[in-house]
Amino acid sequence: MGKGGQGSDAAAAEENMAAWLVAKNTLKIMPFKLPPLGPYDVRVRMKAVGICGSDVHYLREMRIAHFVVKEPMVIGHECAGVVEEVGGGVTHLSPGDRVALEPGVSCWRCRHCKGGRYNLCEDMKFFATPPVHGSLAHQVVHPADLCFKLPDGVSLEEGAMCEPLSVGVHACRRAGVGPETAVLVLGAGPIGLVALLAARAFGAPRVVVVDVDEHRLGVAASLGAHAAVKVSTDAAAGVVAAEVERVRAAMGGDVDVTLDCAGFSKTVATALAATRPGGKVCLVGMGHNEMTVPLTSAAIREVDVVGVFRYKDTWPLCIEFLRSGKVDVKPLITHRFGFSQREVEEAFEVSARGRDAIKVMFNL
Amino acid sequence: MGKGGQGSDAAAAEENMAAWLVAKNTLKIMPFKLPPLGPYDVRVRMKAVGICGSDVHYLREMRIAHFVVKEPMVIGHECAGVVEEVGGGVTHLSPGDRVALEPGVSCWRCRHCKGGRYNLCEDMKFFATPPVHGSLAHQVVHPADLCFKLPDGVSLEEGAMCEPLSVGVHACRRAGVGPETAVLVLGAGPIGLVALLAARAFGAPRVVVVDVDEHRLGVAASLGAHAAVKVSTDAAAGVVAAEVERVRAAMGGDVDVTLDCAGFSKTVATALAATRPGGKVCLVGMGHNEMTVPLTSAAIREVDVVGVFRYKDTWPLCIEFLRSGKVDVKPLITHRFGFSQREVEEAFEVSARGRDAIKVMFNL
Amino acid sequence: MGKGGQGSDAAAAEENMAAWLVAKNTLKIMPFKLPPLGPYDVRVRMKAVGICGSDVHYLREMRIAHFVVKEPMVIGHECAGVVEEVGGGVTHLSPGDRVALEPGVSCWRCRHCKGGRYNLCEDMKFFATPPVHGSLAHQVVHPADLCFKLPDGVSLEEGAMCEPLSVGVHACRRAGVGPETAVLVLGAGPIGLVALLAARAFGAPRVVVVDVDEHRLGVAASLGAHAAVKVSTDAAAGVVAAEVERVRAAMGGDVDVTLDCAGFSKTVATALAATRPGGKVCLVGMGHNEMTVPLTSAAIREVDVVGVFRYKDTWPLCIEFLRSGKVDVKPLITHRFGFSQREVEEAFEVSARGRDAIKVMFNL
Amino acid sequence: MGKGGQGSDAAAAEENMAAWLVAKNTLKIMPFKLPPLGPYDVRVRMKAVGICGSDVHYLREMRIAHFVVKEPMVIGHECAGVVEEVGGGVTHLSPGDRVALEPGVSCWRCRHCKGGRYNLCEDMKFFATPPVHGSLAHQVVHPADLCFKLPDGVSLEEGAMCEPLSVGVHACRRAGVGPETAVLVLGAGPIGLVALLAARAFGAPRVVVVDVDEHRLGVAASLGAHAAVKVSTDAAAGVVAAEVERVRAAMGGDVDVTLDCAGFSKTVATALAATRPGGKVCLVGMGHNEMTVPLTSAAIREVDVVGVFRYKDTWPLCIEFLRSGKVDVKPLITHRFGFSQREVEEAFEVSARGRDAIKVMFNL
Repeated sequence: MGKGGQGSDAAAAEENMAAWLVAKNTLKIMPFKLPPLGPYDVRVRMKAVGICGSDVHYLREMRIAHFVVKEPMVIGHECAGVVEEVGGGVTHLSPGDRVALEPGVSCWRCRHCKGGRYNLCEDMKFFATPPVHGSLAHQVVHPADLCFKLPDGVSLEEGAMCEPLSVGVHACRRAGVGPETAVLVLGAGPIGLVALLAARAFGAPRVVVVDVDEHRLGVAASLGAHAAVKVSTDAAAGVVAAEVERVRAAMGGDVDVTLDCAGFSKTVATALAATRPGGKVCLVGMGHNEMTVPLTSAAIREVDVVGVFRYKDTWPLCIEFLRSGKVDVKPLITHRFGFSQREVEEAFEVSARGRDAIKVMFNL
Repeated sequence: MGKGGQGSDAAAAEENMAAWLVAKNTLKIMPFKLPPLGPYDVRVRMKAVGICGSDVHYLREMRIAHFVVKEPMVIGHECAGVVEEVGGGVTHLSPGDRVALEPGVSCWRCRHCKGGRYNLCEDMKFFATPPVHGSLAHQVVHPADLCFKLPDGVSLEEGAMCEPLSVGVHACRRAGVGPETAVLVLGAGPIGLVALLAARAFGAPRVVVVDVDEHRLGVAASLGAHAAVKVSTDAAAGVVAAEVERVRAAMGGDVDVTLDCAGFSKTVATALAATRPGGKVCLVGMGHNEMTVPLTSAAIREVDVVGVFRYKDTWPLCIEFLRSGKVDVKPLITHRFGFSQREVEEAFEVSARGRDAIKVMFNL
Repeated sequence: MGKGGQGSDAAAAEENMAAWLVAKNTLKIMPFKLPPLGPYDVRVRMKAVGICGSDVHYLREMRIAHFVVKEPMVIGHECAGVVEEVGGGVTHLSPGDRVALEPGVSCWRCRHCKGGRYNLCEDMKFFATPPVHGSLAHQVVHPADLCFKLPDGVSLEEGAMCEPLSVGVHACRRAGVGPETAVLVLGAGPIGLVALLAARAFGAPRVVVVDVDEHRLGVAASLGAHAAVKVSTDAAAGVVAAEVERVRAAMGGDVDVTLDCAGFSKTVATALAATRPGGKVCLVGMGHNEMTVPLTSAAIREVDVVGVFRYKDTWPLCIEFLRSGKVDVKPLITHRFGFSQREVEEAFEVSARGRDAIKVMFNL
Repeated sequence: MGKGGQGSDAAAAEENMAAWLVAKNTLKIMPFKLPPLGPYDVRVRMKAVGICGSDVHYLREMRIAHFVVKEPMVIGHECAGVVEEVGGGVTHLSPGDRVALEPGVSCWRCRHCKGGRYNLCEDMKFFATPPVHGSLAHQVVHPADLCFKLPDGVSLEEGAMCEPLSVGVHACRRAGVGPETAVLVLGAGPIGLVALLAARAFGAPRVVVVDVDEHRLGVAASLGAHAAVKVSTDAAAGVVAAEVERVRAAMGGDVDVTLDCAGFSKTVATALAATRPGGKVCLVGMGHNEMTVPLTSAAIREVDVVGVFRYKDTWPLCIEFLRSGKVDVKPLITHRFGFSQREVEEAFEVSARGRDAIKVMFNL
């Protein structure tokens, strides 16, 4: 199929199936009608779709914060596939191209979009954030400029991993990680691990990872953490202080940037205390909202606290990291499933169980 | 007196008197021996010295955080005077010059000093931070590069006000205040008022000031706040949310930067909620250390939290603000005292009582 | 008229007239068919349109650089008017709103658009840059997000002046002009004057303007230049050095930023020599392309040379500057014309003659 | 020897020899009296000293720009050695420590020093920049904070290479080179090669090197250039345009940053044309001062031109690059000499002949 009109008819003729979140803990594979292909859109046949913690959370709760699933919604947003049809204005993609998809479509009219921080757009349409449908489907239609061609040697599964990796990349950019930045990562779950991979790829000379779980710390070490420090869940001030000392010893010097990938009062308190004067704490993970933390003693050392919301402009860099081998995401993909009703259900269960499952991937 | 040696002898011949903090709530005017004049030092006859909240705090408690007054210490650090003698290597100052003094002498050997953030120097020698003597004295010896010549039309009292004004200037710089920044100032005490004056001088098109006290809000309005919003001390989430709405209404749009000049859980919570996505909260005041705040909901809007510690490189700008009239600090000087034992005691009492006393100034 | 369809029919019924550039030195008022109103567009009745040097250049040469006028084109791009009709998706504007128009529509798909530098978009559609029609017309259709509501107290003529003022604003932003920046402006033509106005509005404590023409220097002084320095056209190295000394004397200290609003070898050489180590030279005006300049001696003082291309995100700030009175553009409007064939021709002649004509404005 | 006084006496007892530049083309090994050891100084026994192009230039001309050798001066400034004695205030170094020396001692009193750009200090005392003596000597006394401890596994010769590598590091920092920056290096001489090494260490995904000399291009390729492009010395506009096309083809995409390590009109013209809109050109090499270049066509694409002067704060990063293996400077050391009168003369001859000699190193 090429540019133009008949392609869409052909696509329409085939029934496009997708995984719909229809009720709490209930996913159904059902037909999903594609929107018309605009001049700057492409139609992509999905090949690899990963499960994110937020997908699991929507399945369990039908909501995240003020985003509520009120009507059945196609789930999934970490994805890659093969272009089948391109709109008339698309010049950089052709049918057959393998692409990774950036899931959010921003408005390009607000101050955030115009100012280069489009991730803050309040009118963002984002895969599987209600009421917008996601991408765990045989086919989707998406703006071509959000579909990034994968070079030879980067697989479609790796392409789908650009999404979680983007979270780490955006955090490293906001915190200014580079070859002079000693980085502390708090939490070795999926977010902590992509933060670790990104920090190494940005050239951090030393990355120390902290967690409460031996197994996760082992994974972090195998992915390139220079040191792994096991801590407790005890949030007493004395315990935090002692753990900070152990972190500093493991670092062998100052912590320039801490990426908190857990987001609890204790981890933020640890981050604030461990980071050197003039350093940065980046809040990547979101455990709690309300936190009780010693903010003033960090502020008077000019330790800044920066937040992250998703990412922007990260796909080209992620793909370059994958192409060059600076990042290897393959070890993160621990489980694979096909796209049947039974397998979709099982995949979400495995993902929800966590721990030894880091990333669960559908091959469509 | 000119460059060279005899001047020092002459100075030594006259007994130099200073206000010593000798015990809790006890200040004594006693002789203070000057150190020798180094080649890049100047000897300055003090003419105007202001009282800072930290001076009062040391007098009450003999400590601030881990800085403990263990031996008698000369107090005072907001000051200006007239150069009496200059070291052999000093070229930009001459006896008779009227100067404002930056109180901190950093090491110039550490990473912070070399990297342009000398205020973070861990080896800083700062007037009246123990064990370093302050400047409420007839004469002090100080590095010449920290003595800034006052132009005609800027009084010595205004020169002494460069110190508190520097706190506002540094906060505005760290938060990036400029002609596109709508600024919210929380707290209308001395720090809040210099933050207001600095924000206006940096070109903020709109500055809203919040406090619990009508009188203070009236002062803020008279100093150029575009709106003043009275709030309660009730920290309940609903109250905060309602007050944030009133702040936004008073602003007539987004808050780009909030300067929290109070430093309590409630003010930080207000700052985090009031500031627009992608904006900045700057922690200037220090009420509490441990705070309970909704940090995550700010982080996911990429509201950054930046701290300030004192200031750096601010005197030339403060003097320019005073010279040009962009800042008028004179209304802040509410009380004046001479330098007798009785007056020193009374001045600190007036300053400690607060409220209608904004800045208490000694004329020596 | 309100949102929706009939408005467009009504508009179509009235014949929309525009000033077309049809051949060298030939402008004709002829009918101009409006494009259909999209959901995020507005239809604006033009009220004030200024003549820019580039308009005159197109009229004289039918080209600027590689932009060639191959078919008749409506001219004009500095404009403001009254909204007559809004598309169905427009929420921030209503018929009757007075608006200033930003003339460039970028693609929002390229790296420059996504990265916050949309002025570098290579697919920009810009009023009166061939083959895109301009705005010297009774009515235009334009994206609503590029139409900025004027507050009471800012006239439509002032609104049209946001366009040239934007050039000065963008230059000041790129050069980092602020309350600590002593600014040298080279050239007191229309660009130099808006650069002067912008530098003052950004808080520059001192702005020195240089030109070869007494009259222009007088205008600069009346608009707020702290000093005006008359120079020669002699580009000999000794002459440049002597003039740089006079500039420094007029500044009374270092030049932090030089805005070169002329763009000749001599002015760039002057800029490079006059700017302090670590300062910035901003190339705003474009006299020559090939220049012979002492670049190395500037480079080893880390004097950076930054370019500007049009502007981005400047309208809200320009309008705030006009609203607050920080910028007064009214003195720049030296001539006014109506919108008849005869007056259009005469207006362009007056504008081309230059010197006492700074800005020529059409009132439609 | 330890901290304290006798060490200095012992050092004084041994006659310290150094290589003195006494006249054009005349170097003499003669005694060099050490200054007294200050409290924050160390005395270092030199072990490795490299020859820089500037050393050769001083030998040939007795001057560089306005720096004139008026009296005999010890030459040399790329150096490393072993600490023999430390001043009473030095805490981070001990006798026996192997250190690399940063050669410039700035004043720490001027705006540049205080603002974090101490390399621009106009009162800098720099090894072998007249009238300051250099470090090609058995011993030197130097501020301890400018002596950086070498970790095990980094040799003294590598330590001496921190100086030239610093030029590349500073250029990459000023140009913002990182994992998203495609870098073009113009010139494959010693400066071009350290720029290449630094760019790779900063994570540049692709570095293309251009030179007129096959041999040098071969060296660049062996050091990690992704592509090497041979060009001519013909500066005609058409030739430049054609070569820019070849560069772009070799890059396989946009050039984000060009590091011009040659500094001629032709190389700057190439840099300006080759760099993408919004990119940066960094002037590292200094061939000519006066240049004839198409500056305007670069400015309107917002291609910025940034200069570099020496470096600041680079030793810790250079040492980290050497420690981690991200940079291997050993292939640059092509010749080694001892420290006799005959060998010093021969070494400078070899260095001056250039081409196959990249870095000539003395082992003392």
